[in-house]
Amino acid sequence: MPGRKKRGQQTVVFDNPPVLTAWAAVVGPKEGEGPWGQDFDYVLDDYLYGEQTWELAEYKMLRETVKMALNKRNLLPEDVDLLLAGDLLNQIVASNFAARDLEIPFMGLYGACSTMAESLSLGAMLLDGDYYERVVAAACSHHYTAERQYRFPTQQGVQKAPSAQWTATAAGAVLLEASGSGPGLKGVTVGKVIDMGQTDANDMGSAMAAAAVHTIKTHLDDLNLESDYYDLIVSGDLGQVGSSIARQLFVRYGIIDPNYKDCGVLLYDQSQAVGSGGSGCGCSACMLCGPLLKKMQKGEIKRLLLVATGALMSPVTSFQGQSIPCIAHAVAIEMD
Amino acid sequence: MPGRKKRGQQTVVFDNPPVLTAWAAVVGPKEGEGPWGQDFDYVLDDYLYGEQTWELAEYKMLRETVKMALNKRNLLPEDVDLLLAGDLLNQIVASNFAARDLEIPFMGLYGACSTMAESLSLGAMLLDGDYYERVVAAACSHHYTAERQYRFPTQQGVQKAPSAQWTATAAGAVLLEASGSGPGLKGVTVGKVIDMGQTDANDMGSAMAAAAVHTIKTHLDDLNLESDYYDLIVSGDLGQVGSSIARQLFVRYGIIDPNYKDCGVLLYDQSQAVGSGGSGCGCSACMLCGPLLKKMQKGEIKRLLLVATGALMSPVTSFQGQSIPCIAHAVAIEMD
Repeated sequence: MPGRKKRGQQTVVFDNPPVLTAWAAVVGPKEGEGPWGQDFDYVLDDYLYGEQTWELAEYKMLRETVKMALNKRNLLPEDVDLLLAGDLLNQIVASNFAARDLEIPFMGLYGACSTMAESLSLGAMLLDGDYYERVVAAACSHHYTAERQYRFPTQQGVQKAPSAQWTATAAGAVLLEASGSGPGLKGVTVGKVIDMGQTDANDMGSAMAAAAVHTIKTHLDDLNLESDYYDLIVSGDLGQVGSSIARQLFVRYGIIDPNYKDCGVLLYDQSQAVGSGGSGCGCSACMLCGPLLKKMQKGEIKRLLLVATGALMSPVTSFQGQSIPCIAHAVAIEMD
Repeated sequence: MPGRKKRGQQTVVFDNPPVLTAWAAVVGPKEGEGPWGQDFDYVLDDYLYGEQTWELAEYKMLRETVKMALNKRNLLPEDVDLLLAGDLLNQIVASNFAARDLEIPFMGLYGACSTMAESLSLGAMLLDGDYYERVVAAACSHHYTAERQYRFPTQQGVQKAPSAQWTATAAGAVLLEASGSGPGLKGVTVGKVIDMGQTDANDMGSAMAAAAVHTIKTHLDDLNLESDYYDLIVSGDLGQVGSSIARQLFVRYGIIDPNYKDCGVLLYDQSQAVGSGGSGCGCSACMLCGPLLKKMQKGEIKRLLLVATGALMSPVTSFQGQSIPCIAHAVAIEMD
């Protein structure tokens, strides 16, 4: 029966939930100095990672993160059927170059900071659908490649708005397998693009809050779940400003007292001068593939809803006065 | 059984081949003046399409193409489960803004000019896997948005190298359904990133030729097919220069006398001063959704292998002296 696994408006559930059998997270120096430094697999000594440019460092970080995840299962890239990955760079070159070196069949994604949830969603569907045995879902961002692409030369020292966020230098990769030991990916809710007419690219958290809450509301409704079903609902990178708006929207949408946090708020200590918090594809990717999945392994979190959020504008659309379209995808991960 | 639908190295075949039940192609003035002008659904009068900027025109073109395809089945965007789309713009903003207006759950893709095959591949897997009933796969490009993003201000009139290609102003959209009347999508081969060390961004066809032939060879081997199984094997946008290299590589790989053509060569008349030929996500998208699927409906082509090709560099990686990683995905479309 067509669409048999779809529930409600936008959610699919799996007959055979794919398993997160291994994962890895690599982060930059600043992220390593934050509250979760011990929970990442590797912390870079500097932002160049032994390369000539930040861009080369970013793609190396993604490639090495994938290898670290595979290494935990004693697997090589050639054992993987498909790599689903994306990043923030124009033409997602970090992912393209990593995929070239890894020699894994590759599909490139662009979902801005929602990419980790997008890659996990697609990976899970392609495994549960019997196409593949092993898929790697991955995402990364690099503070300095993002700054020079989206904003100003860092040497200029432009002062940031308090609502602005700090693009994380981080990569996360998950090995999804059709079966095995680890948390299961039970279902996904693919988001719609939501645009509240916000035009301030220095306040992306506020722009993304509505998309996050829309996807959370849709997910809970589609599966008839109470708002406290999840031990943790974690948004990607709304930051302090955006997540306080999300909390107001929860009330408006009747989502009562969810166990809610935001990766952008969690990633750094308040003393680290990151404005409203962390952002970037790597933000939710490293929080998932570091502290959050570690907590699931220890039994501290049994049911996690990762709601990675993306602001889908470009510098050109902002210059042309367009508002910021946003998206959020939700991935339900549970330990049996 | 995990991976039951995978064949050989990189190919999957479908238990329930999704059906291309409707499609549409919209092109720019130059493409409308080419040999296939009558085969597209709509030809723009000018490059602004009633908008203030080329970027707004591009996203409108994608949005309207999707609506035209749905209209042929008397469907509205709300009847569609998922939109899979991408384009050439930084942060794929044409697709993001089109998805916002269409209000269809959306996953953004970046595969450069391979996007139409990537979106069809994913869409087919998600339908055959019973997640959805209706998915739209789409891609677009716009000559003038691409020129100003990738090359020079057009007003400057920079002379192009003979090997350079002409980014097509075009969009294509396919409605894939779990069942119905139309050509069936029998299988897909997801490509690996191939990099032959070529660094000349004015000769992307040559860079992409190896990726195209690698994917074609893998597809034929994985399914044990002879090279004349397909009535037409059509690459995305190798152009004159790249497709002549592809023909040499066929000989080297033992692919004997395939019925081979290239969308980039087909799209324009030789008199149209397009250098080596057409390129851009819209090139293979409009050739598929215009003349090629029309020929399948008429019975002139029964078995088509679309091998859309993408050059995965960015201006930044080229400036930094990096070579051009390339990819090609193959989609087998057959009329029963």
